[in-house]
Amino acid sequence: MISNKWAKLIKSLHLKKYRKAEQLFFVEGEKAVLEVLASPWPVRALFATSNFIQQHGQALQTAALLQECSSDELVKVGTFSSNDAAMAIVEMPQWPLFSTNANSWTLVLDNINDPGNLGTIIRIADWYGIKHIVCSADTADCFNPKVIAAAKGSFLRVQLHYLPLAEVLSHASMPVYGAYLGGDNVHQLNLNQAGGFIVLGNEAHGISAELSRYISRKITIPAFGGAESLNVGIAAAVICDNLRRQSQQN
Amino acid sequence: MISNKWAKLIKSLHLKKYRKAEQLFFVEGEKAVLEVLASPWPVRALFATSNFIQQHGQALQTAALLQECSSDELVKVGTFSSNDAAMAIVEMPQWPLFSTNANSWTLVLDNINDPGNLGTIIRIADWYGIKHIVCSADTADCFNPKVIAAAKGSFLRVQLHYLPLAEVLSHASMPVYGAYLGGDNVHQLNLNQAGGFIVLGNEAHGISAELSRYISRKITIPAFGGAESLNVGIAAAVICDNLRRQSQQN
Repeated sequence: MISNKWAKLIKSLHLKKYRKAEQLFFVEGEKAVLEVLASPWPVRALFATSNFIQQHGQALQTAALLQECSSDELVKVGTFSSNDAAMAIVEMPQWPLFSTNANSWTLVLDNINDPGNLGTIIRIADWYGIKHIVCSADTADCFNPKVIAAAKGSFLRVQLHYLPLAEVLSHASMPVYGAYLGGDNVHQLNLNQAGGFIVLGNEAHGISAELSRYISRKITIPAFGGAESLNVGIAAAVICDNLRRQSQQN
Repeated sequence: MISNKWAKLIKSLHLKKYRKAEQLFFVEGEKAVLEVLASPWPVRALFATSNFIQQHGQALQTAALLQECSSDELVKVGTFSSNDAAMAIVEMPQWPLFSTNANSWTLVLDNINDPGNLGTIIRIADWYGIKHIVCSADTADCFNPKVIAAAKGSFLRVQLHYLPLAEVLSHASMPVYGAYLGGDNVHQLNLNQAGGFIVLGNEAHGISAELSRYISRKITIPAFGGAESLNVGIAAAVICDNLRRQSQQN
């Protein structure tokens, strides 16, 4: 059973201000919970169905507290419409301060509002081996349960830094690429360096005017049909794919 | 006001069987409704707020019936959590029978379940100028309101055909590429033809065993980090981007 005290705490963690105050967030569902348990991230508590406990007994020992509960209880305190497995209450990581590395790529997110988009971008960064994402303060919170769900365990391997973007980019010693409609074709960038910044803008308004002065090169995914735009997660994936392909060729 | 009769009809159109019986579906929200009105697709009825009617009066004349209503009424009959603009009740198109064209690419969807994924793939197809998508019967219905919302008007420009995939692919005279983990790197395909089929499999189970015998080449998006997989919409975009880049280079 999930005690009233824990239920109340978990429900408060749906909101950013309580996540921040407690320095805790939660992870739902079989695969993501198993990934957290296998990681070095401290799991403060694990609530799991008897079935899940039977199947994965050994893996659950890293949790400070293990409590059996029903699938209905998991649904009641969480955000999933069904959850036959588990929920982990996890301590937020303390990442080292962000510093650019000349041999790596960094994604820069300017006011990405949608938690699903942010989660997707974290998963893409992880696929393409990008270790750092710098976010504006008004970007969705990376510990939002919808972000965690969409990131599919990749939140464990990508460091998110919420920083004033103008300040970060004004000190950039590497190229700053901005995703725009009407920039240079990403198929033909001919990159000859192994690192830089890729700035992705808000879903409705794109990259803010304040940041645009720091963009050293506007880049665009070429269109061949009638669609006006691509979703920002899709754009992130196609751009990362082109960067990795070209960095490898050179 | 939306009459009881129309409200009942619209609510029935949330379900595939009534959409099929009536040969109607609905489109919600300002941008998508304006795109439908500007298209040759017959709009049986348009329900719109007074504000929307004032702003777009001229564009609305192509609808057979125009009825002013409140934003609350639009929310009540539709699927959006807010809609200050309009809803169009649209006749389903009658596409010509699918036939392969040697100079074009066709996406083949094997049991794509999630309507959001299908809508995203339609938008991506439109961006990359792919005019045809062939879907297995168990793929999400393309007139599902969530598909229409995610496709952002691109459903007007991409033809979806629900057909037995094994039969279609067994007659293929062009290469059939299948998206797998562990196939040939899409960065290095060196395509020298301008058309073919791209098969994308189910979100959880990939391409079915039945279809795998028709795949002439397995292709894979190279990974550089720790993520186990990419969402099928993301994979579709990256593959289409590589096909278009290579088709253009050759």
